[in-house]
Amino acid sequence: MDYQKILSEIERDVQPSIGQGRVADYIPALSQISPNMFGMALQEVDGAAFHTGHSAVPFSIQSVSKLFTLTMAVQLEGEALWKRLGREPSGSAFNSLVQLEYENGIPRNPFINAGALVLADVIVSHVSNPKAAILEFVRNLCGNPDIEYDQAVAQSEREWGDRNAALAHFMKSFGNLKNSVDEVLDTYVHHCALKMSCIDLAHAFRYLAHGGCNPDTGERLMSTSQTKRINALMLTCGVYDAAGDFAYRVGLPGKSGVGGGIVAVMPGKWSTAVWSPALNGKGNSLVGTLALELLTTKSELSIF
Amino acid sequence: MDYQKILSEIERDVQPSIGQGRVADYIPALSQISPNMFGMALQEVDGAAFHTGHSAVPFSIQSVSKLFTLTMAVQLEGEALWKRLGREPSGSAFNSLVQLEYENGIPRNPFINAGALVLADVIVSHVSNPKAAILEFVRNLCGNPDIEYDQAVAQSEREWGDRNAALAHFMKSFGNLKNSVDEVLDTYVHHCALKMSCIDLAHAFRYLAHGGCNPDTGERLMSTSQTKRINALMLTCGVYDAAGDFAYRVGLPGKSGVGGGIVAVMPGKWSTAVWSPALNGKGNSLVGTLALELLTTKSELSIF
Amino acid sequence: MDYQKILSEIERDVQPSIGQGRVADYIPALSQISPNMFGMALQEVDGAAFHTGHSAVPFSIQSVSKLFTLTMAVQLEGEALWKRLGREPSGSAFNSLVQLEYENGIPRNPFINAGALVLADVIVSHVSNPKAAILEFVRNLCGNPDIEYDQAVAQSEREWGDRNAALAHFMKSFGNLKNSVDEVLDTYVHHCALKMSCIDLAHAFRYLAHGGCNPDTGERLMSTSQTKRINALMLTCGVYDAAGDFAYRVGLPGKSGVGGGIVAVMPGKWSTAVWSPALNGKGNSLVGTLALELLTTKSELSIF
Amino acid sequence: MDYQKILSEIERDVQPSIGQGRVADYIPALSQISPNMFGMALQEVDGAAFHTGHSAVPFSIQSVSKLFTLTMAVQLEGEALWKRLGREPSGSAFNSLVQLEYENGIPRNPFINAGALVLADVIVSHVSNPKAAILEFVRNLCGNPDIEYDQAVAQSEREWGDRNAALAHFMKSFGNLKNSVDEVLDTYVHHCALKMSCIDLAHAFRYLAHGGCNPDTGERLMSTSQTKRINALMLTCGVYDAAGDFAYRVGLPGKSGVGGGIVAVMPGKWSTAVWSPALNGKGNSLVGTLALELLTTKSELSIF
Repeated sequence: MDYQKILSEIERDVQPSIGQGRVADYIPALSQISPNMFGMALQEVDGAAFHTGHSAVPFSIQSVSKLFTLTMAVQLEGEALWKRLGREPSGSAFNSLVQLEYENGIPRNPFINAGALVLADVIVSHVSNPKAAILEFVRNLCGNPDIEYDQAVAQSEREWGDRNAALAHFMKSFGNLKNSVDEVLDTYVHHCALKMSCIDLAHAFRYLAHGGCNPDTGERLMSTSQTKRINALMLTCGVYDAAGDFAYRVGLPGKSGVGGGIVAVMPGKWSTAVWSPALNGKGNSLVGTLALELLTTKSELSIF
Repeated sequence: MDYQKILSEIERDVQPSIGQGRVADYIPALSQISPNMFGMALQEVDGAAFHTGHSAVPFSIQSVSKLFTLTMAVQLEGEALWKRLGREPSGSAFNSLVQLEYENGIPRNPFINAGALVLADVIVSHVSNPKAAILEFVRNLCGNPDIEYDQAVAQSEREWGDRNAALAHFMKSFGNLKNSVDEVLDTYVHHCALKMSCIDLAHAFRYLAHGGCNPDTGERLMSTSQTKRINALMLTCGVYDAAGDFAYRVGLPGKSGVGGGIVAVMPGKWSTAVWSPALNGKGNSLVGTLALELLTTKSELSIF
Repeated sequence: MDYQKILSEIERDVQPSIGQGRVADYIPALSQISPNMFGMALQEVDGAAFHTGHSAVPFSIQSVSKLFTLTMAVQLEGEALWKRLGREPSGSAFNSLVQLEYENGIPRNPFINAGALVLADVIVSHVSNPKAAILEFVRNLCGNPDIEYDQAVAQSEREWGDRNAALAHFMKSFGNLKNSVDEVLDTYVHHCALKMSCIDLAHAFRYLAHGGCNPDTGERLMSTSQTKRINALMLTCGVYDAAGDFAYRVGLPGKSGVGGGIVAVMPGKWSTAVWSPALNGKGNSLVGTLALELLTTKSELSIF
Repeated sequence: MDYQKILSEIERDVQPSIGQGRVADYIPALSQISPNMFGMALQEVDGAAFHTGHSAVPFSIQSVSKLFTLTMAVQLEGEALWKRLGREPSGSAFNSLVQLEYENGIPRNPFINAGALVLADVIVSHVSNPKAAILEFVRNLCGNPDIEYDQAVAQSEREWGDRNAALAHFMKSFGNLKNSVDEVLDTYVHHCALKMSCIDLAHAFRYLAHGGCNPDTGERLMSTSQTKRINALMLTCGVYDAAGDFAYRVGLPGKSGVGGGIVAVMPGKWSTAVWSPALNGKGNSLVGTLALELLTTKSELSIF
């Protein structure tokens, strides 16, 4: 399969759609990104790497980071994690409090904001310096010691983060947050503020296409079974309230962020990352979703 | 892969769980089935067939039949179908009216009851004798001319079907039902009352594992792309409000019915059907779900 | 108090608002009424009667009729009625199915459509000819044997009444409808199609201002306590989702209908009826609400 | 009317019900009150005062205090207040976030917790020392300079107040909170922690029965019209999700608190306060509601 050719074709094919959609503007620090950026990278499990466009430009990975914290939380707590978290699609906006109320403070899944706050809480409970631990975990996966938090974004997220504070206090009122709201929010806004490029992301997430092992080092991060399960969670819950549409159009497990990034995994073969900041009505990168749809169409690969 | 051995092991392993769960009792005709039945069949795309237990006993396939009517509706209307139907998980009970109200009469997906009523309405609009057409379609797929509707179940479903009548009238009030409520309900309760065995079902649904072609005849029912999309819909919406849990545990596109049947598909390889009447709290066969989980564990096959 | 002068002033003061709002158009038979009609009548318990504008023109009283059927149902079943009906404001649209689902088929109060269907069901259970019985009850209260059902409106309501059919089937699925959906709907659409004038209505509802006795005949319809309770229900639930605003602005128990009529009661003193067909965003007569607000302002009477 | 005799009869009649219901235990400081306390006071507008039982014992008035802050907020902002607050019954629990989300951060009414936080925010915006200002306002109304905040209750409420913190942050995320969450919560938990007796409360709230004037001083707190409107709000929204039932049984505007107090007003005649700590399923004093029902039955007075 000539992935380089496919990526180049995709970059060409998406041009007419660039400029559609809307850059996230709920925090000032994100709203200033040009909507015209487009980058894409794909790396095979065996290491062959392909990329196109602004694939080396670091951007704010936002909710894509929840895949890292989910992996860490699974390492730390195993199956016990699921007593505090559901595994079902939410059918509502990613930061909704409604279902949390109906379901007594148990977030529907780890990828909605409430669920990711539980993941952060787990990490805070287990490690002494959560922000440093997450950063080290991510740098190791990427083999890139230069990855950093964007402190301006973290700060902005904290200042404008009343919705997340509401979620955190609300869960604490149900007893589903063990640490202080402040410490959990601080951890959360930092991992959301990780700056990474498509190349970094495609490299990092190959373990999800490789049964839970880091292909660079052979190190096992999770069991094969746990890995399959995270892929299953991505498919059913990874792209906010558009899981059905994404599965229908793209047919791969994927995780998106409001910074315009999406990562996706073809089990056994490769991981890919795409970035284009303008979002569709569901909060996923408009051009990114299209690019992934083109990738599965052109490669005739999908999990279905 | 020695599928016969795997099926035999599964039958042995599920024994301790037989008797757990609860047989559906919302209509009298279904409530009298013994909860101790267990059958399972698997058929490869190339025709090799395996089965164990009560795999030749016909049972009421109920919502599994929605896969047949969805395929017919896709054949009849193509992409236009999705103007009247969503593709997202519902996050609510299969016969809930709540989301239908919030979303102005557009069912969230084709597998909740409201969505299946739209499918029936589409078929009623296009063919002169919908019940005969559906029966012929199913018999052809199975190569079994003896498949019949269970008239007692259809009758019972109609008499106790005020919830479905409510859904149908409600959608009609939004203009999303074109034919008379009576005719649509009559079609719906009949296809839900199809009696088929695990062997029939595993045989019939191989087209979903074979890119949309009937492996027996080579006949194309849908495009490869449409087929992948139906599999994606099964994964995100096929097992009521347990899509996430089912994907997590089983890792295959599947569709269940309250009669205790579940079908699942491993794209490119095989389709399988399992039957055990007692249901778990989400309305899916308790032992059936377990059997499918064992199948993907033992075969080390899943889409993830 | 010079009520005739007050009514005349009100008619003058509301003129600038006539033409605002929107005539109900959910059934063709109602949509053809001129939005410029305005009538108002007030009758004291002792018989003194006042009126202005189109107060003698019969119009479709719609949901105002639920006061009649509630009174009949209280007569027929007493407190037992409240096992099948709540007494709380709904906080949702009058024909919503959502709360009905959360609360297992028990309508929140007798004035939302679902609740009124239960009232109709009660009457159908107790009398052999419900439509004739309701008509006789209303004629007696008005002392007007010419009051009739508008058969065209009833027919139109039945044809366009899929939402009500959905509500009825839905309650039947919960066991909260004893008779056939058809018979209950037939009764319901007829009593909603009663044609009465403001003069008729103000005359009829004096029993609610008179402790439950018909002031013309001295006949007791309900106990004093039951009468106060119906007034309390009107105040908290009588004007759809605008109970708070209506209580705040008008300060009287009132019941409105989508035909543009509103009746209100000043306990111990009088009942009043106003009609102006154009509705505000909550489904209550826009000018009618304003007229009642002017009445309590000018008379300095309200229950608060 | 011999109110002293009526109060004595009520105290006798409620004895069999004392011990039913459950004392609020969501904060430790409230849970230790004996469920067997019962006090009641009634004071006429002209000053005649009656009381029985533990009517001089100060207790935690909790949400009853929202009447004071609503009056202050109406004084400070007038009609402009209603841009930030609805006037409709909520149909949900008093501390629910659900409707707040559907309605974009605008609380349904001033008496649910979210609404009362907006009232506190208004006061914080206008006065330099909100806690002192509220205390002075209350002391003046009661003519009792000894009224104090219970600092232990305020402290406990703050520590266990994650639900209120969630509400406050949530509204701030919608822009409907102008001051810091901390300052607003501090004000809120203090006014809820006011300690007052039935005698204090019956004395204080006579202005609501007297057209907005303090009967002791003749001082006007609000216009007659504003006063009627607060009474209307009490009737439709004053007792959490039991407004309909309370109006039906008691027939007076009333406001309850989880400390077991309820105040009610008979416009033009008197105000009354009752206290009994054990609550019914809706969060209102079980014996208190019964006592008020007996009061309107025995006195044959109600607004209906």
